[in-house]
Amino acid sequence: MNYQFARRLDAAPESFLDRLFAVSRDPEIISFAGGLPMTSLIDVAGIRDAAAAVFADEGEAALQYTTTDGYLPLREYIAGRYRSRLGLPATAGEIRITNGSQQCLDLIAKIFVDPSTVVGMEQPGYLGAIEAFSYYQPRIKTVQVTEESPDMKAFSTLCREEKPVFFYGIPNFQNPSGTAYSDAARRTCAEICQETETIFYEDDAFGELAFDGRPRMPVKKYAPECGVMSGSFSKTVSPGMRIGWVYAPGPVIERFDAVRQAADLHPNALSQAVMHRYLTTHDYDGHLRQVRRVYETNCRQMCDLLDDLLTDITHTTPEGGMFMLATMPEGKDSMALFHACLAEKVAVLPGVPFYAEGGGHTTFRLNFSTATEEEIRVGMTRLARAYRNSNR
Amino acid sequence: MNYQFARRLDAAPESFLDRLFAVSRDPEIISFAGGLPMTSLIDVAGIRDAAAAVFADEGEAALQYTTTDGYLPLREYIAGRYRSRLGLPATAGEIRITNGSQQCLDLIAKIFVDPSTVVGMEQPGYLGAIEAFSYYQPRIKTVQVTEESPDMKAFSTLCREEKPVFFYGIPNFQNPSGTAYSDAARRTCAEICQETETIFYEDDAFGELAFDGRPRMPVKKYAPECGVMSGSFSKTVSPGMRIGWVYAPGPVIERFDAVRQAADLHPNALSQAVMHRYLTTHDYDGHLRQVRRVYETNCRQMCDLLDDLLTDITHTTPEGGMFMLATMPEGKDSMALFHACLAEKVAVLPGVPFYAEGGGHTTFRLNFSTATEEEIRVGMTRLARAYRNSNR
Repeated sequence: MNYQFARRLDAAPESFLDRLFAVSRDPEIISFAGGLPMTSLIDVAGIRDAAAAVFADEGEAALQYTTTDGYLPLREYIAGRYRSRLGLPATAGEIRITNGSQQCLDLIAKIFVDPSTVVGMEQPGYLGAIEAFSYYQPRIKTVQVTEESPDMKAFSTLCREEKPVFFYGIPNFQNPSGTAYSDAARRTCAEICQETETIFYEDDAFGELAFDGRPRMPVKKYAPECGVMSGSFSKTVSPGMRIGWVYAPGPVIERFDAVRQAADLHPNALSQAVMHRYLTTHDYDGHLRQVRRVYETNCRQMCDLLDDLLTDITHTTPEGGMFMLATMPEGKDSMALFHACLAEKVAVLPGVPFYAEGGGHTTFRLNFSTATEEEIRVGMTRLARAYRNSNR
Repeated sequence: MNYQFARRLDAAPESFLDRLFAVSRDPEIISFAGGLPMTSLIDVAGIRDAAAAVFADEGEAALQYTTTDGYLPLREYIAGRYRSRLGLPATAGEIRITNGSQQCLDLIAKIFVDPSTVVGMEQPGYLGAIEAFSYYQPRIKTVQVTEESPDMKAFSTLCREEKPVFFYGIPNFQNPSGTAYSDAARRTCAEICQETETIFYEDDAFGELAFDGRPRMPVKKYAPECGVMSGSFSKTVSPGMRIGWVYAPGPVIERFDAVRQAADLHPNALSQAVMHRYLTTHDYDGHLRQVRRVYETNCRQMCDLLDDLLTDITHTTPEGGMFMLATMPEGKDSMALFHACLAEKVAVLPGVPFYAEGGGHTTFRLNFSTATEEEIRVGMTRLARAYRNSNR
């Protein structure tokens, strides 16, 4: 049997995520390669109680077919949080529930991208986005991100000359770099997007994980009609429940509903009801404070150990999120480091797959949300040894 | 702001499912339009207990990120059931968990369909499949289905001359018609597919709902390498948990994993664990016997009432599943009937959207799995009145 696959499959990059999830599961390896929230911070008892309440009060509805748009009380909760936390005039009608924010990447690309459509994104940029977009065969054009912002001149030139259908970015504690845009950069992005009628697709999976708890204003605040945002409870409550969302202007939501229905009919009714019950009967803000505290401690420790043990490596210094990016001196290769690391029972993620237009060979991503303080101490020592070995 | 949507959106038919789900929720309307399993047959207490056990034993894992392929014990359960029930040599490695079988439609199309790729399907055929496929811009070619089989001559000509990348069909109690292929038709389909190297994409959402409980052999049994099957627990356990699966040859599974990961990373970890726990700690076969008994009773009642009250309407006589198709005399129009029905507080689904190549204006679909016996009695009386009104 000769299977004839679609041409779009040739456009997709080789997937790294599988391999890194596989690596993350070997119990002997201390993994800084994945992107898991710390398991001990998942409030299993709280979610268990929320589930029991859902089964008692609304079990039939939570197990039956439901609507494509998502559970209204949950969409109202999310809209309310945008209003109270960020001052955005969000309504439930502009929110749709998705299977994590990864599904937004797929569906937004499906709505906007034809073969050869130009899509802008950050360099380095989230590799899950590169993979999702690639199946729609865009021309991806990147703009370098620094500790403060995308390269604003390049961003402006991209929007004016290449006319991307959207620019995809993570202004809050980016994956993979952990960097955040300054408020000035957000305003400038908004101005340029408004002038050039470019959608700014703002993936905000990490905004609630600012170590200082201070809300950063999204680009959408300054350019509402250009702003498509996505969010997720995967990093803050539970990834296994697969609850993310999109927050977008009416005309986009309308198209979103149709493609989402064709994709898998509707979000998981049980997960939505349990998540909503959990959020409204437990101290979500208190939970977030605890998560932020642990991740900040881990991040500081990892930065310090990098500075102490790997003196010729530079790294970003995140103020939130789950990741940082390290850069080795010119001539080094992160794939060699990756293999040396596996031999030492530690895992890092080579930066290359985050570079949609190539490059990044000297970079690697480190996750600081999964491991304990002790594991970070041991793992960084192993990393230092692997780094020395890989340079022989 | 001028949003530039992808060209593929123009290819999609106007969605009916939303409207019918909306109609289904008006409590005054007796709906035969939807496709909901009977709510009172959902084992809320059993699933609640399964969830409690999951939280107690494996709560952390059920709430954390998991793998793209799906929960291994659940895949093993499904493979085991294929082996014991149908004698198929299925292994967990050939099974992938999806968000209902609707997600299979999207992902299988994504893997195989480029713009203008020929896809074969039944006429009438499942409208959710037409919608899912349409976003990949295929040329859909249809083969008429009768009470016994697709038109085998047309099927053979299609496979030989049009070379579809796959033929999509529902051999067991089809949506919308409720008809099933004879065993001879299944064997012939398999022979033709093997000769012509055509994939037979066999949507088996209803196979477990044969009123007599007798397993019908899938086409895949006779042509393993051509067979891509999908299944679902939505019709038998709970739709809200969104657990379906695909069962396909290795080379297809490999491509499936990559596109599924890009689409939404992985299936819902909590739903998978709870579903597996439910299936292995409750009497699933006993539950199925009960569901089949109720649906058979409803189906017989609906057929009898159609025969008694609507004497110039013909209809299929299903031996399983959830749907039947009614056909009015030439010159009648099911959209007129639809509106007349709404006025009488009853809903049926016009057949037109199930006809990918046009036609079907005199047909409508009736669902017999949602309403109670009493509702069917009252609803069919309303339908008869609406039918008389629509013909004035």
